[in-house]
Amino acid sequence: QKKIDLSILTKPQKGIEFVGKDSLFSMRLQFRMQNRAAFLTRDDKDFSAGSYEFRVRRLRLKLEGFVYSPKLTYKIQLAFSRGDMDWDMTQESQVNTSVNIVRDAVVYYEPWKDLKFGFGQTKLPGNRQRVVSSGDQQFADRSIVNATFNMDRDFGFFGAYRRNYFAVLGSVTSGEGRNSSGSNSGLSYTGRIEALPFGAFADKNDYQEGDLAREQKPKLSIGASYNFNDDAVRAGGQLGRDLFAKTDMETFSLDLLFKYKGFALYSEFMQRNCSNPITYTSDTLSVQPVFTGYGFLQQVSYLFKSNWEIALRYAEVTPFSSVYNNPDFTSVNLKKNQEFQLGVTRYLYGHRVKVQGNLLYQLTGDLRAKTDAGKFGAIFQIELGI
Amino acid sequence: QKKIDLSILTKPQKGIEFVGKDSLFSMRLQFRMQNRAAFLTRDDKDFSAGSYEFRVRRLRLKLEGFVYSPKLTYKIQLAFSRGDMDWDMTQESQVNTSVNIVRDAVVYYEPWKDLKFGFGQTKLPGNRQRVVSSGDQQFADRSIVNATFNMDRDFGFFGAYRRNYFAVLGSVTSGEGRNSSGSNSGLSYTGRIEALPFGAFADKNDYQEGDLAREQKPKLSIGASYNFNDDAVRAGGQLGRDLFAKTDMETFSLDLLFKYKGFALYSEFMQRNCSNPITYTSDTLSVQPVFTGYGFLQQVSYLFKSNWEIALRYAEVTPFSSVYNNPDFTSVNLKKNQEFQLGVTRYLYGHRVKVQGNLLYQLTGDLRAKTDAGKFGAIFQIELGI
Amino acid sequence: QKKIDLSILTKPQKGIEFVGKDSLFSMRLQFRMQNRAAFLTRDDKDFSAGSYEFRVRRLRLKLEGFVYSPKLTYKIQLAFSRGDMDWDMTQESQVNTSVNIVRDAVVYYEPWKDLKFGFGQTKLPGNRQRVVSSGDQQFADRSIVNATFNMDRDFGFFGAYRRNYFAVLGSVTSGEGRNSSGSNSGLSYTGRIEALPFGAFADKNDYQEGDLAREQKPKLSIGASYNFNDDAVRAGGQLGRDLFAKTDMETFSLDLLFKYKGFALYSEFMQRNCSNPITYTSDTLSVQPVFTGYGFLQQVSYLFKSNWEIALRYAEVTPFSSVYNNPDFTSVNLKKNQEFQLGVTRYLYGHRVKVQGNLLYQLTGDLRAKTDAGKFGAIFQIELGI
Repeated sequence: QKKIDLSILTKPQKGIEFVGKDSLFSMRLQFRMQNRAAFLTRDDKDFSAGSYEFRVRRLRLKLEGFVYSPKLTYKIQLAFSRGDMDWDMTQESQVNTSVNIVRDAVVYYEPWKDLKFGFGQTKLPGNRQRVVSSGDQQFADRSIVNATFNMDRDFGFFGAYRRNYFAVLGSVTSGEGRNSSGSNSGLSYTGRIEALPFGAFADKNDYQEGDLAREQKPKLSIGASYNFNDDAVRAGGQLGRDLFAKTDMETFSLDLLFKYKGFALYSEFMQRNCSNPITYTSDTLSVQPVFTGYGFLQQVSYLFKSNWEIALRYAEVTPFSSVYNNPDFTSVNLKKNQEFQLGVTRYLYGHRVKVQGNLLYQLTGDLRAKTDAGKFGAIFQIELGI
Repeated sequence: QKKIDLSILTKPQKGIEFVGKDSLFSMRLQFRMQNRAAFLTRDDKDFSAGSYEFRVRRLRLKLEGFVYSPKLTYKIQLAFSRGDMDWDMTQESQVNTSVNIVRDAVVYYEPWKDLKFGFGQTKLPGNRQRVVSSGDQQFADRSIVNATFNMDRDFGFFGAYRRNYFAVLGSVTSGEGRNSSGSNSGLSYTGRIEALPFGAFADKNDYQEGDLAREQKPKLSIGASYNFNDDAVRAGGQLGRDLFAKTDMETFSLDLLFKYKGFALYSEFMQRNCSNPITYTSDTLSVQPVFTGYGFLQQVSYLFKSNWEIALRYAEVTPFSSVYNNPDFTSVNLKKNQEFQLGVTRYLYGHRVKVQGNLLYQLTGDLRAKTDAGKFGAIFQIELGI
Repeated sequence: QKKIDLSILTKPQKGIEFVGKDSLFSMRLQFRMQNRAAFLTRDDKDFSAGSYEFRVRRLRLKLEGFVYSPKLTYKIQLAFSRGDMDWDMTQESQVNTSVNIVRDAVVYYEPWKDLKFGFGQTKLPGNRQRVVSSGDQQFADRSIVNATFNMDRDFGFFGAYRRNYFAVLGSVTSGEGRNSSGSNSGLSYTGRIEALPFGAFADKNDYQEGDLAREQKPKLSIGASYNFNDDAVRAGGQLGRDLFAKTDMETFSLDLLFKYKGFALYSEFMQRNCSNPITYTSDTLSVQPVFTGYGFLQQVSYLFKSNWEIALRYAEVTPFSSVYNNPDFTSVNLKKNQEFQLGVTRYLYGHRVKVQGNLLYQLTGDLRAKTDAGKFGAIFQIELGI
């Protein structure tokens, strides 16, 4: 066992890469952090500070590469920030019982160039905004549509077949979400298709927000995802609080992305159905609903040559009447939410170093009482990584 | 303080090593992950899925090297996977009160070649299967004998003296297990001796499962360990749930390892004694027993030239009648467990990259009622690391 | 995107540094661990062991460097040891609800050499002993004055202006401490000034304990800090258990450091004021006081040419009568604490590798009953890092 020299390389915005000269393995190391100061007004008349959010929103470490053969690759991502570890003790839970540092831990086998099989934990092929890394977003965070309906990550088997004009993705996973300790007999099935009528985007530019690659020709991607979670035990399927009874749920998403010369447009529609969306304890004193309903997101942005970007977002989420006006469960009254957001971003080193300012207006609607309550907010965020 | 160049090297299956050219320090970095999909049938008549285990079982990061002098070495191992952090909120506990990421954090001083002193947290010199890394096992996980009786890790002082034909190891540690916040006045004492009548194995091959080194001469190691845990406060000594009263316990192990040209045989016997194995609250409503009893493990394997391995395991664990038929505590009825396992492993890059399939049959015996219940299971596991 | 070579360098005691040849980023990696075995006697008559502390006290990973421009720097520090993650389940809490791995995650911008702005989470510019890294202390841990009154870390905005003879530092932060999930409308304001009448110390030697740099001329630094925490919700402001009502608190510190040819002297005075130091539930059955009072610390040390150091410490902490003799809350009786400590340290590789032995005597005084209780103790600690 003699010692072999390694090479150490980098590509812009791609961290530090170690490559064995005998090509037995490679490892690329990246980190990133997202520091945020935000405040919300008390309401939309009184502009004084109601609350602040001052925290390291995310701090991640990522390892990627291959071992043994360039066809056998891996991706590991760890999350170290408190709000990014999925758990706190105020949530009583039998399913999600402790912190979880592992975001991604997946092994891929690529028998040939367009085909990829995965085994492990990573993102399900759901709505595009969820699959775009939190480090590649153009607003400080994802939308309320994503927060309410996203399919998140799960552990299991993954497959993807990508060609120039289309992609087909699928997975069979546990259904209990990130790294659950055990899993019931009902699994979760996800499928996604994408059509790219004008051909592939620049290097992964269809999985980044904004048009930093400044597509020289118009590019369009239309995607549709479907997830069926058999015997789901958490309010959001792969996410959320414990349900009091297991239930089947299905989630759809439809998204459209267009980019051209610095301009980007993104639309997303999502819907969740569930035959029994309200679960309860046998004494019916405790109730945990599933948010069934639909949501819509629209984002547009333009990136100036100076790498300043302006972006606008509108998002809304509307529950079905069965979870806000259910005669059997009058205590359940899920709200309609709307979000208007203006984002200004200065990209210093692509998405790896950027300074972001967001202004937002949130409107919460009680559909049963037919009342509204609004709040203004502002967010300052710095993302820094290698 | 001028800057000095570092070298960066690797040995096969030994990660990335940084060495200062002035030899002031070295650091070897390795990671590994274990992704597992397993299922158990409902019972041994109904073969439909009773439950699944879909998760990142382990994800570890290891740093090893020396600082200041090659005689002063360190080993750090961190565990990031939820099921590998020792704690969840369903366990009410005064001893083991939060997650624990640190598996190993130990400083060694080697005054001369065969002698080694350690200070910190690492594995106790207990039964061999426990001391063999979870990354160097030939089945998906260790046996039920180990799960029931192993002495695990602890913090304290360690010593080892190794020669060609024998080894003597000992430790004095806290007795409360991995990184307890405080420790009572009773410590834990462990000793181990090993006899190697045919001389040393190939490079650490006596602390790996399977015979990947394909010993060219027959090699045998016989080991015996003894642990005395004074004032133990957890059901497994260094591990397990809180006891309701501190108790002294002692654990023995005897193991035998034989390897020759790809063939490996491993036998292990363990036993735990405790004068008062059942602890209880003053109102006797809550009871926490110590599993006193004995267990036996037998593994045989053969590694083909193609690096496919077939392995068989039989393990059983039997409680003493004081913890399954105790007239003072009729609610305590610990079970006899048996495990039959067939393992097929394809080693792609030694133990660092391997694909494993296991079939198993578990039999749980109620010794008081004289009844049995069986389950079949299957496990698919990929281990990948550098 | 062609691949670019990186350089890999080190400076003594400064870990491993990666620098892009195009100077687009740098990253310095360091780790350190602190392994400790300590015991306390039952009291000052009976010298038998009352309790032990056997644990990895700290295990830290640090990343520092710049991205995009040498003026845009970052510091990340992660803590992996159980006792170093701020939380355990025995503390019921609505504020500090899960473990926290992130110690530092801060971005700095240095528009010119002496001026530095920060955004993120790091130490507040409080008492000097708190700001000195736990890896650069001369005793096994900081004093009881620091434990009782320190301002710790927080998330927010930082500024520092340093010249040869003085420094001015300030911050505006959340006031809820390390990485709180949300924050109320009351923020925390900290200011600090330092005077260095004989000019700057050797490279950061005024923020290390002991005089390892062996200042060739006498050096003195006098510092004063002030913190006002508006609407504090934890007993120590940025730290500690939940209060039952939010309260404003202010904390002062005054410190003096002198070093010359291996000799070091450090003095610190701290005081905390709070108009309503005792918070309670509406039924007044549960009470959580703020430790208002003052403390004093004195340390002196001499470092021999052989890198053996001898150090002495005296520290005391005295509560105000409103928290030990308050007629409205007779259950609240905070204690006066005194600590006498002798430390012997052998530095092998600066502060990065050192072996420490401490003897201590603790005296706890009940000011209401006018009684005292003492304990002796001994600590053995090895710190190892790169």
